[in-house]
Amino acid sequence: MSDNDWLAHPFDDDKLKEECGIFGVVGVSSAANFTALGLHALQHRGQEAGGIVVHDPEQGFNSVRRFGYVRDNFTQQDVMDMLPGPIGIGHVRYSTSGSKGATAIRDVQPFFGEFAMGGAAIAHNGNITNADALRRELIERGSIFQSSSDSECIIHLMARSLQRNIPERMKDALRRVEGAFSVVAMTRSKLIGVRDPLGVRPLVLGRVTAESGDGWVLSSETCALDIIGAEFIREIEPGEMVVISEKEGVTSHRPFEARKSRFCIFEHVYFSRPDSILGGRSVYSTRENIGRELAKEAPVDADLVCPVPDSGTPAAIGFSLESGIPYAMGIIRNQYMGRTFIEPSESIRNMGVRLKLNVNRALVRGKRIILVDDSVVRGTTSRKIKEMILDAGAAEVHFRIASPPTAWPCFYGVDTPQREKLLAATMSEDEMREHLGVDSLRFISLDGLYRAVGEAGGRDGKSPQYCDACFSGEYPVEPADQIQKGFQLKAAE
Amino acid sequence: MSDNDWLAHPFDDDKLKEECGIFGVVGVSSAANFTALGLHALQHRGQEAGGIVVHDPEQGFNSVRRFGYVRDNFTQQDVMDMLPGPIGIGHVRYSTSGSKGATAIRDVQPFFGEFAMGGAAIAHNGNITNADALRRELIERGSIFQSSSDSECIIHLMARSLQRNIPERMKDALRRVEGAFSVVAMTRSKLIGVRDPLGVRPLVLGRVTAESGDGWVLSSETCALDIIGAEFIREIEPGEMVVISEKEGVTSHRPFEARKSRFCIFEHVYFSRPDSILGGRSVYSTRENIGRELAKEAPVDADLVCPVPDSGTPAAIGFSLESGIPYAMGIIRNQYMGRTFIEPSESIRNMGVRLKLNVNRALVRGKRIILVDDSVVRGTTSRKIKEMILDAGAAEVHFRIASPPTAWPCFYGVDTPQREKLLAATMSEDEMREHLGVDSLRFISLDGLYRAVGEAGGRDGKSPQYCDACFSGEYPVEPADQIQKGFQLKAAE
Amino acid sequence: MSDNDWLAHPFDDDKLKEECGIFGVVGVSSAANFTALGLHALQHRGQEAGGIVVHDPEQGFNSVRRFGYVRDNFTQQDVMDMLPGPIGIGHVRYSTSGSKGATAIRDVQPFFGEFAMGGAAIAHNGNITNADALRRELIERGSIFQSSSDSECIIHLMARSLQRNIPERMKDALRRVEGAFSVVAMTRSKLIGVRDPLGVRPLVLGRVTAESGDGWVLSSETCALDIIGAEFIREIEPGEMVVISEKEGVTSHRPFEARKSRFCIFEHVYFSRPDSILGGRSVYSTRENIGRELAKEAPVDADLVCPVPDSGTPAAIGFSLESGIPYAMGIIRNQYMGRTFIEPSESIRNMGVRLKLNVNRALVRGKRIILVDDSVVRGTTSRKIKEMILDAGAAEVHFRIASPPTAWPCFYGVDTPQREKLLAATMSEDEMREHLGVDSLRFISLDGLYRAVGEAGGRDGKSPQYCDACFSGEYPVEPADQIQKGFQLKAAE
Amino acid sequence: MSDNDWLAHPFDDDKLKEECGIFGVVGVSSAANFTALGLHALQHRGQEAGGIVVHDPEQGFNSVRRFGYVRDNFTQQDVMDMLPGPIGIGHVRYSTSGSKGATAIRDVQPFFGEFAMGGAAIAHNGNITNADALRRELIERGSIFQSSSDSECIIHLMARSLQRNIPERMKDALRRVEGAFSVVAMTRSKLIGVRDPLGVRPLVLGRVTAESGDGWVLSSETCALDIIGAEFIREIEPGEMVVISEKEGVTSHRPFEARKSRFCIFEHVYFSRPDSILGGRSVYSTRENIGRELAKEAPVDADLVCPVPDSGTPAAIGFSLESGIPYAMGIIRNQYMGRTFIEPSESIRNMGVRLKLNVNRALVRGKRIILVDDSVVRGTTSRKIKEMILDAGAAEVHFRIASPPTAWPCFYGVDTPQREKLLAATMSEDEMREHLGVDSLRFISLDGLYRAVGEAGGRDGKSPQYCDACFSGEYPVEPADQIQKGFQLKAAE
Repeated sequence: MSDNDWLAHPFDDDKLKEECGIFGVVGVSSAANFTALGLHALQHRGQEAGGIVVHDPEQGFNSVRRFGYVRDNFTQQDVMDMLPGPIGIGHVRYSTSGSKGATAIRDVQPFFGEFAMGGAAIAHNGNITNADALRRELIERGSIFQSSSDSECIIHLMARSLQRNIPERMKDALRRVEGAFSVVAMTRSKLIGVRDPLGVRPLVLGRVTAESGDGWVLSSETCALDIIGAEFIREIEPGEMVVISEKEGVTSHRPFEARKSRFCIFEHVYFSRPDSILGGRSVYSTRENIGRELAKEAPVDADLVCPVPDSGTPAAIGFSLESGIPYAMGIIRNQYMGRTFIEPSESIRNMGVRLKLNVNRALVRGKRIILVDDSVVRGTTSRKIKEMILDAGAAEVHFRIASPPTAWPCFYGVDTPQREKLLAATMSEDEMREHLGVDSLRFISLDGLYRAVGEAGGRDGKSPQYCDACFSGEYPVEPADQIQKGFQLKAAE
Repeated sequence: MSDNDWLAHPFDDDKLKEECGIFGVVGVSSAANFTALGLHALQHRGQEAGGIVVHDPEQGFNSVRRFGYVRDNFTQQDVMDMLPGPIGIGHVRYSTSGSKGATAIRDVQPFFGEFAMGGAAIAHNGNITNADALRRELIERGSIFQSSSDSECIIHLMARSLQRNIPERMKDALRRVEGAFSVVAMTRSKLIGVRDPLGVRPLVLGRVTAESGDGWVLSSETCALDIIGAEFIREIEPGEMVVISEKEGVTSHRPFEARKSRFCIFEHVYFSRPDSILGGRSVYSTRENIGRELAKEAPVDADLVCPVPDSGTPAAIGFSLESGIPYAMGIIRNQYMGRTFIEPSESIRNMGVRLKLNVNRALVRGKRIILVDDSVVRGTTSRKIKEMILDAGAAEVHFRIASPPTAWPCFYGVDTPQREKLLAATMSEDEMREHLGVDSLRFISLDGLYRAVGEAGGRDGKSPQYCDACFSGEYPVEPADQIQKGFQLKAAE
Repeated sequence: MSDNDWLAHPFDDDKLKEECGIFGVVGVSSAANFTALGLHALQHRGQEAGGIVVHDPEQGFNSVRRFGYVRDNFTQQDVMDMLPGPIGIGHVRYSTSGSKGATAIRDVQPFFGEFAMGGAAIAHNGNITNADALRRELIERGSIFQSSSDSECIIHLMARSLQRNIPERMKDALRRVEGAFSVVAMTRSKLIGVRDPLGVRPLVLGRVTAESGDGWVLSSETCALDIIGAEFIREIEPGEMVVISEKEGVTSHRPFEARKSRFCIFEHVYFSRPDSILGGRSVYSTRENIGRELAKEAPVDADLVCPVPDSGTPAAIGFSLESGIPYAMGIIRNQYMGRTFIEPSESIRNMGVRLKLNVNRALVRGKRIILVDDSVVRGTTSRKIKEMILDAGAAEVHFRIASPPTAWPCFYGVDTPQREKLLAATMSEDEMREHLGVDSLRFISLDGLYRAVGEAGGRDGKSPQYCDACFSGEYPVEPADQIQKGFQLKAAE
Repeated sequence: MSDNDWLAHPFDDDKLKEECGIFGVVGVSSAANFTALGLHALQHRGQEAGGIVVHDPEQGFNSVRRFGYVRDNFTQQDVMDMLPGPIGIGHVRYSTSGSKGATAIRDVQPFFGEFAMGGAAIAHNGNITNADALRRELIERGSIFQSSSDSECIIHLMARSLQRNIPERMKDALRRVEGAFSVVAMTRSKLIGVRDPLGVRPLVLGRVTAESGDGWVLSSETCALDIIGAEFIREIEPGEMVVISEKEGVTSHRPFEARKSRFCIFEHVYFSRPDSILGGRSVYSTRENIGRELAKEAPVDADLVCPVPDSGTPAAIGFSLESGIPYAMGIIRNQYMGRTFIEPSESIRNMGVRLKLNVNRALVRGKRIILVDDSVVRGTTSRKIKEMILDAGAAEVHFRIASPPTAWPCFYGVDTPQREKLLAATMSEDEMREHLGVDSLRFISLDGLYRAVGEAGGRDGKSPQYCDACFSGEYPVEPADQIQKGFQLKAAE
């Protein structure tokens, strides 16, 4: 099995991919066990690889980094025995920057550095938009990079800081960095959490009751607090750094100039788990709201509302509740998805999709079906699903999409195709309907999406409340490396 | 990793387990590739191990049998290259009879035997209730068993038959066998399918369009026809044997005395996939019907109807549609389930369940929740789910179960605990409610279940239309080996 | 890695291969640990695969059979924990009969059978010359074979015996069997050892001091007694069966008609380890004697006597001692031999041999070299070694071979090429010298070989003391299956 | 299998271990294939792990580093396909400095660094005696170390050099480094070889005929030239750096101040392969000479001269030739050595040694035996071998050791126990004889050893011709890090 079999999900190729999940804990007897559980709960944020670093007063720093699922790598006693100690951080990753296709294990986080005052490890969710420039500068000055990851810049900037403790060095380093970053880091005794000034990626603080007193947890999402029975305390604020130790608890720092925050609105639409809470709002309920908004904006007369499983489910329920059209599972997902099978020489129509999804033929035959999906990226899968539904005898197929047209790539930690591969970058909504061959196709409006996340007045065009660059083309941080490589920003209107 | 890591699903321990899925194909250029896809679609019927046997005119019989998922074992080119030929059969297995806990690879089907007139392989779904007696007799006469499986009796009985071709030897053998069996078998050129006279386990016939003419498919369920784009032709009849060859097509035989059929009603409730069609009925729709019947039989005033995912989903949708109470995903299933994690020394309440399920806290807080599940076996998981829901702040929890109380073990190919471990064998419905600690608990009635599967008049007490021994204790075939070991049948009333 | 990488030894292809080593022990606390050590010492008799079967009063029979070396398969605690109990047998194998090239794990011994009076396992060294006929007969009568091995006949014949205990059934079975066989077998409490009436393959009895009293050991060679610190008691006699139990010790049986024995003379030449004792004679000393005889029969004026390592070493020492020509290591063997490397596109002359052997260039330059090897089979390697020695600047190369020309295949448990591939089957000694391109080539005479093994009068032509069919073409047991397949015996003179 | 199973050689624990072998090639079509073969020939210099780095004009730098043998890691097509290109270097390693016991893969060489002018990789044989100090300084200035290896200092010093090409940066770096080092390095187009001013470790230059013109090879020993059919050109001189490119061939540089060389004399005694040529002398012949010197210095009346295999063999042959006492293989080595077996509960006397060696009992019984070994380190194995020989019935045992008493640790790239563990550090020769329990024990004298390597006048006490610190305690380079940790140099006399 090659290292990259985990990438072989033909169906999922047609989704944007969240890049990473991060987790950290301090003040418990076995940080690695908690971290493994936390990363398991965050596995949807990165399936390619994962790593855990811990520190133990007697055994120092230890690290295990592996390709594959958390459940396969961090459940065996012999592996976990290599990870003793009361403090640890972890990372799950889907490659965004760094090497693609042939990701090496050296690109798997957390990264570790030995400084004059001791070691530190960091795990990063997001993307540094000036990483290429920083890297060139650091190499010029004698730094040796071990990975192709943008995140490694942070640890080299820390190594060269003249500050005398690690939190201060981290502030130095992060002030040089542009882009989106939520970071969890650790020293021998301190757990550190930071969000960039815009707060593009999430990071939450929790408390876990431990025998030896209270432990503290940092996590990308609240669902990882639930799995370990931890209490949700609060979100880390945009631009905030928290430094946590067993003795002194949590102290808050503000290393950056204050800015208005721009949280990623796609976290609400797709990336985060439906049982997580973002910005005080249930992700599930937000998605149900999107479905309700969509039913209001784009009603259609039909027999059944069916989700494209699993991500379209909450919006489909919302659409059904608002429209009164019955909800049904018209498409069944195979629970045992995985690698690619070898196709028989008699080729099978849409085999890639069939491995994961099957139409509930007896249910859809002769019916007018509303299919609710979270997004359309390349449109390749949407076409195949439409074909399968029609093959099964559906009378009509209406697509309703729980996000606006995805017309721009994300440079803040999401794996998106190049702009020209995005269906909405080259076609109007009507052309897309034609291309997909469905009876109707409607996306939620940008304002409708903002209303669904609680902005009753919709999007503030002058100063948007969220980062929605993938829909609007308005990038809150200039993607410097990309522009250097020739990316063209949206022309000013 | 030990061979038995696949068993380490603590949550799923509280379900009845279907034992096997079988598949066969003839008349295509690469039978193994089709069989791998078919077994992948049948994986829910057996996750422990799987095997494929094929025959090629030049390379003879070849076989690969492995522990683990189809997607992991039968997707690599080097493995599939070992399996050439136009005819093949396959099997996925969860151990029922045969060795438990430490299942050896020698117990993994299909089984193969070399006879004087050539080789044959068989794959069996069901359980032979007089296997112990047959085995003793065969050993006494000089047969050497290679496995601990009940199914191996069939091939030894065939070896000793005086008939001169394999289909006739198979008839000889199966006439000696008691219990439930759907069998797929193959010779160098013939594909054979059989169902026992009661037709307890399913078996369907399909046709696949191949370049070299039409190919034929046998499968436990129709969902495996869908994945390969095959057309559903008909069910194999109870007591029927079909012999299929490329040249002569399908011929039907009736080797047994005719009896009224008794198909397993639990296939409708839980075992089969919702997108399969059983007895002409959509499994999904039947389960939705069960939910509707349950809402009529056991209504309750509440805020939300939530399934215990994923098996409770269609019944919950039906309950919601009938009752008008909104349907919602109050419990979210982790898609990356798998092995058991190591628990931190600070023990985590209900960690086993948390690995797989998480309560959607923001949704259920303060709400009166109806939880719809497919069955209650030991009740251990139901208790834990109830605790998690209450921990999350639900105001009330009402359980509605889409099957009658499971009070008797199955001896026809399902893995059930011993009778004394079944909650319903030792407690009344009211005691169970007390034991589970919920505000109300109601099971669908046996008549209600029969109505849901289309028997408008309910169960025919004198001559039931289905096998429902797990609910009723009325066993259509006497479980001879079990009685020999001390099992007590229900006292005549 | 495919299962057959163990076969990828291009150099060793030019040797006859001993087929199997067998070992058994009873009366110790952990039979499997002793058996693993014993098989490790017998590894030279079979490198492809190995297996161990044990019996424990509480846990019954257990078995592990694996491809690869004993040191890799039977040294891990988890594997050995699966093999508890005070009695066990083991087998190492190089495929002779049975499947070639793609040996399946099902062909790896020991074989096990469950009989009416309990289970038994057997391990066989040798070859059954009427196995094909027996197999046809058994299948006709309803036996199902699980392997392609000739040895499996024995266990099926035992299953069909009407005798009431296993030793008697084994006598019944072995009386039907023709060819060469040393067998170690076990029941729940008895260890059994047998040699065929001619005693072609070796088998020895030893005693190991155990805490719980004395344990008994059976082994192909005495070197496996040494590794476990066991005392050598005696050889099992040709035609003898010993039955050993903890309580009753060793009892001796004579199930066959008495015949004059014909032990394999090649065991002395090459198969057995030099530190073993065969027929009361040190194998090392015999080989040294062969070298001395060779120096007398075929002297030559030269500067150095060099062995082809490692098997030619003792004869080279003997040649040096007799001739007075200094002994030296002109060829060095790489200790880390193994798989085949990928050749660079710039192809390397004789790369296959270079991976294993290197000429000691500084030593041989300008010298007249006598190379002593144990045998010439196809002659391919001999040619390459000659080329390497000449490339390094040797002045002359004289081959002296420690066995007579190998002109006939062995059908008694040795892997030999077909007759036409044997160099000596198609060429005279002088043609061979020409073909190999050496300055002189001499084989020891058949009489010289007999003298070296202690037969002062040489070979008794009317009734030879040993089996020397590979040299003489005189087969002591008619190879019935081979004749059936067209093999032509040597014409009577 | 844990990463460290390769260390589990109990017998070999009683040897000094050479630390590393290095190899490089440029100007061929598949550098990796040649490098794999070269490393296979150098495997005796390091069995724990190995790595290869190559560069291809289109695919850039690629690297594979693995635990285990070359034959297991670098023989598979898929691995070698990851290593394209005409230039490459490789390294085999036994851990000396760097992490012990739990060596991480990050400590496996070659190391790679990306500099402003492009990448470079290095492989190092030897030990840097001021590595700790350099490391502290580099970390203080912002370098991040990825391994615990002393060799990584070199690449960080290169990264910080102000020179504008890599060979000049390497000179800068190596001038800061103290200790013993032979280095092979590469850029995109240049192969570089360096030996430290004392020339402690070997490095040779060879030429390989390639289709595209001549290729150049660097290797620790000449035996790696032989395996690929390369011609030996010359040794790299102590203090020399060669820079080799396809276009410009070999240019020689002298970056260090000239000093008298001090080659490691133990390379002649044990580390190098007998078929290699060091300083123009055949290693095999030198060892035979040592045996002859020993026979002159310490004659004894006995029946047989036996080597402790395999390293004692050439000296034993020399001893036999000089003394006229017959040479014989009294101890047989198991060719299938490897991991540690589990000992039966009935413990076996000297089991560790028995796994690897067996006494040729029939040969030694009643004889007076001279055992020739290469060295005595802790003496633990020597005692066990003596016991085995006596158990087998030898009349007398005389040890003759082919090196002087090893009384001091090596700090120049050899794995030695701490001084107090060395038998000769705490006992006189007579006490050692007593301790080992043999009839006599004699080591070759230091002068005798020098004579055997061709210094007719013996050792030049004022300015020794070799590094013999392990015997004499005279360290040619002060071991700065060790002194810092408390190591006490030999008191001036």
